[in-house]
Amino acid sequence: MSPDHASPMVITTGEPAGIGPELVLMLAARGVLPAGTVAIGDPRMLRQRADALSLEVAVVEASPGQVLPAPQAPTLPVWPVALKEPAVPGTLNPANSHYVLETLALAVAACRSGQAAAMVTAPLHKGVIIEAGIAGFTGHTEWLRDACGVDEVVMMLATDNALHAQAPGWQGSGDLRVALVTTHLPLREVAEAITHERVMRISRLLEADLRHQFGLVSPRIAVCGLNPHAGEDGHLGREELDIIMPALDALRQEGMAISGPFPADTLFTPRHLADVDAVLAMYHDQGLAVLKYAGFGQAANITLGLPLVRTSVDHGTALALAGKGVADAGSLQVALSLARRLADQRTASRR
Amino acid sequence: MSPDHASPMVITTGEPAGIGPELVLMLAARGVLPAGTVAIGDPRMLRQRADALSLEVAVVEASPGQVLPAPQAPTLPVWPVALKEPAVPGTLNPANSHYVLETLALAVAACRSGQAAAMVTAPLHKGVIIEAGIAGFTGHTEWLRDACGVDEVVMMLATDNALHAQAPGWQGSGDLRVALVTTHLPLREVAEAITHERVMRISRLLEADLRHQFGLVSPRIAVCGLNPHAGEDGHLGREELDIIMPALDALRQEGMAISGPFPADTLFTPRHLADVDAVLAMYHDQGLAVLKYAGFGQAANITLGLPLVRTSVDHGTALALAGKGVADAGSLQVALSLARRLADQRTASRR
Repeated sequence: MSPDHASPMVITTGEPAGIGPELVLMLAARGVLPAGTVAIGDPRMLRQRADALSLEVAVVEASPGQVLPAPQAPTLPVWPVALKEPAVPGTLNPANSHYVLETLALAVAACRSGQAAAMVTAPLHKGVIIEAGIAGFTGHTEWLRDACGVDEVVMMLATDNALHAQAPGWQGSGDLRVALVTTHLPLREVAEAITHERVMRISRLLEADLRHQFGLVSPRIAVCGLNPHAGEDGHLGREELDIIMPALDALRQEGMAISGPFPADTLFTPRHLADVDAVLAMYHDQGLAVLKYAGFGQAANITLGLPLVRTSVDHGTALALAGKGVADAGSLQVALSLARRLADQRTASRR
Repeated sequence: MSPDHASPMVITTGEPAGIGPELVLMLAARGVLPAGTVAIGDPRMLRQRADALSLEVAVVEASPGQVLPAPQAPTLPVWPVALKEPAVPGTLNPANSHYVLETLALAVAACRSGQAAAMVTAPLHKGVIIEAGIAGFTGHTEWLRDACGVDEVVMMLATDNALHAQAPGWQGSGDLRVALVTTHLPLREVAEAITHERVMRISRLLEADLRHQFGLVSPRIAVCGLNPHAGEDGHLGREELDIIMPALDALRQEGMAISGPFPADTLFTPRHLADVDAVLAMYHDQGLAVLKYAGFGQAANITLGLPLVRTSVDHGTALALAGKGVADAGSLQVALSLARRLADQRTASRR
């Protein structure tokens, strides 16, 4: 069964001691959750959190496939997963780690069966999941990769022009999208991780999902060099000459509209970005500092290469803020808005 | 003799085959050179370039110390240095490499004697200077360091709010300033170059010049981590724990208002930057991609640690564009505007 346009988006509410649950409740209370959005989590915990924060929102249990009436007042439909122990904001409890993964498993199953159009993930806490005995857990992205049985995924961050166009001072003419060849590696290991094969694989995954998820017929990708000034003809490092340029040549021979390697400090300027659908950066801080600056600190994470639409907030559990109602729901809004657009695009491209 | 408020700013016109000479002429013809700006270069070459580009500007020879009448029409006063051979736009000629260095030596001498208030450098071409037999030449910054007899300088890039405040869509509330712990190193050598001593030295130079050149009484510096997420408590690299944090602790004990290390991808967001006078990035692309994005691609380079004010364009000689009148003089304008402000500040703080 393929995803249905009318299927809901699901939000996994993430670590119950973190800010995830209240961010979802805050958007629901403000009436700004996209129509047909469903949360996955413990309804009792969500009701308690709403009460503690005086958020006027009805937490209503629902189930996959159920058609929900249009609400008369702020309502959060929830597909229930039960906590093992009551959650205390700010205090991690390994007893609830399996609960977090259960919410993910339910979201994946619903997306794959067509009962959900997309999944949006609130933050989880890696440390407490490892502490609970789930060895080798390294984060949402890798867990989803394994759960979906694919070999490799690509991390992309994006701003959402549809939201930011209304923001005061917004200067962009389109979304900024940055994908990464390497992600969470110590800087001293980055150069070694840039291989011909890796640049090829990541570029191909990126291009495929720019077509399928973003609906771009001929996506244009601009690639950053690894070294300052993209190596300045070998004077500042040889990876551009030895690895990146041959890989891009091969990709162009496959028909890809991919260009570079460009110096990262001049690529991220409006006149260069005007002709580009996505930037492929070689490592985390090269691409994400400018992306988050451009998005006023509010961007969303998109996992490419999965057989489903998954977006995520770009921040962590913020334990110190949890339960206070002061956390910023902006990134969750961006993640929801992007997930809706990607899900609609995916549906359209299958018609 | 200390610099006089009425002293001119000097622009070294740089590589004569590049875009430097025409950028200066373009600003002069448009009447937007700050009052009292003098170029250093070959007057004949400058007249020929102006004629070829139909720029209406009178190139007038002058000499250091000479008081110039207020011009009636667009005028470029020039302190003359003679080319060895005629310059052809786009074609490098090692015979003229010593000329380029002579213009720099004249600018340094004038700044140090008080006959110039500041120097602004148009781009030179490293390759042709090395080809001319000047072994070990690595660029303006190191040449100026040696010419001034100092041990270390710091590269900072800055946007200029005074110019950008008028630009459409400008969202900034102040200048963005980014200084670098390491500059033109291959990425694979960066981690090794981050030492306790180096972080201490660069931070001290940065703070001293934020006081003296920028007039900040208690400059606030925010420091980036080296690794993604600033190392995430050692999970993504240990340089933050082992090197950067102890260095910042020591600097705070000296009374410096320095904070960090922060993840680079969240530090560069408006709410974090609001409380910061300068960001210290660990390496080139970590700091400069966002800086240039923020400055609409127009930023200027400032060399800190010199006994004079020096700013520079942030681009190269652009040989392919030279002689066509199509190059963008924006960065030169930012460099001039910043040099004026720094020179005035330096004068004020000596009164």
